[in-house]
Amino acid sequence: MYSERMGNVKSSAIRDILKLMARPGMISFAGGLPAPELFPVKELALCADAVLKKYGAAALQYSVTEGILPLREKIAKMLDPGKERLTADNVIITHGSQQALDLLSKVFIDNGSPVITENPTYLGALQSFQLFQAKVSAIPSDGGGINTSLLRDRLKKEKPRFVYLMPNFQNPTGLSYPLERRQELAALAREYDVIIIEDDPYSALRFEGERMPSLFSLAKGGNVVYLSSFSKTIAPGLRVAYVAGAADLLTKLVIAKQGTDLQTNTLGQYIVNEYLESGHYQKHLDRVTQTYRERRDVMLAALESHFPKSVSWNKPSGGMFFWVRLPDGSDAGAVLNKCIEHNVAFVPGNEFYPDGSGKNTMRLNFTNATSTDIEQGIKRLGEVLKENGL
Amino acid sequence: MYSERMGNVKSSAIRDILKLMARPGMISFAGGLPAPELFPVKELALCADAVLKKYGAAALQYSVTEGILPLREKIAKMLDPGKERLTADNVIITHGSQQALDLLSKVFIDNGSPVITENPTYLGALQSFQLFQAKVSAIPSDGGGINTSLLRDRLKKEKPRFVYLMPNFQNPTGLSYPLERRQELAALAREYDVIIIEDDPYSALRFEGERMPSLFSLAKGGNVVYLSSFSKTIAPGLRVAYVAGAADLLTKLVIAKQGTDLQTNTLGQYIVNEYLESGHYQKHLDRVTQTYRERRDVMLAALESHFPKSVSWNKPSGGMFFWVRLPDGSDAGAVLNKCIEHNVAFVPGNEFYPDGSGKNTMRLNFTNATSTDIEQGIKRLGEVLKENGL
Repeated sequence: MYSERMGNVKSSAIRDILKLMARPGMISFAGGLPAPELFPVKELALCADAVLKKYGAAALQYSVTEGILPLREKIAKMLDPGKERLTADNVIITHGSQQALDLLSKVFIDNGSPVITENPTYLGALQSFQLFQAKVSAIPSDGGGINTSLLRDRLKKEKPRFVYLMPNFQNPTGLSYPLERRQELAALAREYDVIIIEDDPYSALRFEGERMPSLFSLAKGGNVVYLSSFSKTIAPGLRVAYVAGAADLLTKLVIAKQGTDLQTNTLGQYIVNEYLESGHYQKHLDRVTQTYRERRDVMLAALESHFPKSVSWNKPSGGMFFWVRLPDGSDAGAVLNKCIEHNVAFVPGNEFYPDGSGKNTMRLNFTNATSTDIEQGIKRLGEVLKENGL
Repeated sequence: MYSERMGNVKSSAIRDILKLMARPGMISFAGGLPAPELFPVKELALCADAVLKKYGAAALQYSVTEGILPLREKIAKMLDPGKERLTADNVIITHGSQQALDLLSKVFIDNGSPVITENPTYLGALQSFQLFQAKVSAIPSDGGGINTSLLRDRLKKEKPRFVYLMPNFQNPTGLSYPLERRQELAALAREYDVIIIEDDPYSALRFEGERMPSLFSLAKGGNVVYLSSFSKTIAPGLRVAYVAGAADLLTKLVIAKQGTDLQTNTLGQYIVNEYLESGHYQKHLDRVTQTYRERRDVMLAALESHFPKSVSWNKPSGGMFFWVRLPDGSDAGAVLNKCIEHNVAFVPGNEFYPDGSGKNTMRLNFTNATSTDIEQGIKRLGEVLKENGL
């Protein structure tokens, strides 16, 4: 009765875990939620009011599928301040980055089409690709991102429709690609004439080190489609994100978007546009980044204090996640069940592995809990790990 | 390089015609836009402000995929005031009805799956079904809706994944189904155990006559999925619409929505919820309906005054469109090209026919032009028709 594709996908474990979070006393490191106490609620309320006064009904009417022009112009300028390559024609607004993944899947994937991701990779991307019955082939990452010699090999053999990567503070591992790897990937995309989808929700949340050029900028737009969002930098509930890329590809995405939802919500687009014009954005980003850096540091110290010696983790220099590795043979899923009894939660890393491996890994979010809760929650988690002989 | 599906779909002719509309002096009957001068802009600005004061960051944060609970509860109550059958579990919020069509396509359509529509039918639904490579089979309508003896025949032979219908003030024809046809269809859905998608964006815009029961209510929920929206009744730019149906089907839609866009924009949902609570909604609907009725009457009188005798049309008792039939063998597309030179536009009806017929038909929208413009535009259009020997 249902379509074949529905046999491929299951409800997101993360979304299901999130339902437990309402329990009183629960400390959750499970979600990927930004800190709501940092949302610029008052400023956005002023923006909503200003927008409805200034544009009136136009901010509530149907609008073009591509997204409102002033916002697309601003994004083009943010991505290409010198205005060398990008105009508003290289940008479309999507209803969150998740929709960008849906549209790209529509435009590129046939039943059984090969696509390449990292192993592990962002769960929401996997869900999207699976809904379109892609054959996902995952390549392990070393500390510097996707393994390029394996990738080169796979590109020759599989001729994938695209390669999906997150070079900044990857979800789930928190790792970033060094410059050389980026340059190599930009060159590879050209050499094999393959599309790279560069998903970049977190690059504005950098705690230290210099900002790295995107694959999109290194490839000068050729073969790379760039995705980013205001969900982590302003507020996710507005659902305003964007895709930047070659104009001919965007034309296809626009046709797909017409049949998908006509357009992204007009009011949300105008509010984001107004907020960017208000001049508060950079100051707000600084404040968010500072708070997240503090929380990262608190979690790092708590991990060092409370976790057993057999367990290891990275130190992310941006983004929202710690990536924890239990000893080989451990089952993070079983640990989670015990943890929930102790009112603390995380996402078992296994969820992020297209090949089903990674059972000994866990993803810990540090942006959506106070320092006190982070210290307390990691302590509880460490106790459960120790009780389980780790 | 692109997916096979992209060979099936083209950019919507309507969206392309809309781009011409910005021309100064153009009078357009082409779109399906509600009248922006009737949007409750001030009330919605107050609602946005109240929501951000009352719920704060929660109105800007990620929320559940199903949609916010208070809004789903209100919709369940609107659809089933006696609370006999429906709860919030039977409702999910979508990013416009177009997204509901996308999600239903995802959940039901495999490459080549048969689906049945009316001939003509809503263009946006066709776009959505085509993106999923459905085999669309169209059944002509008589004055009382889809021809049920042909439908019965086709249900036996084709075993379609669903039948897509718009029983109230159909887009594009403006026609509504009488009670007997509705009862027959509700019974047919059960008899053949086929899903009917009942798309109902316009039922609140009724100018005369009694409100008819939905197929969804007649079928007591069994086999019918009900779609409606606040786009035509509050404002389309908020992108807040809904699907009502059996809880097990909605579970599938929620899984599909997770991979599609995670959730409908939170702020828009809260604003609609607040507006419904404010008690202004019914008064606002009365005002919109009255204005649209006046415009319908103005267009009717103008058609009678200015159109040649060889041309016929319906008198819609609700909704947004007149449906005009030129003599057999006429080409409304050629008429449109002449009309654009004379600064008046419409949509050639042919666009709405999955089987490519209907070249002698045109759809005229009467909700998005003032009475003066309607009179003037229909006069221009009548002159072009007469100049073309009709």
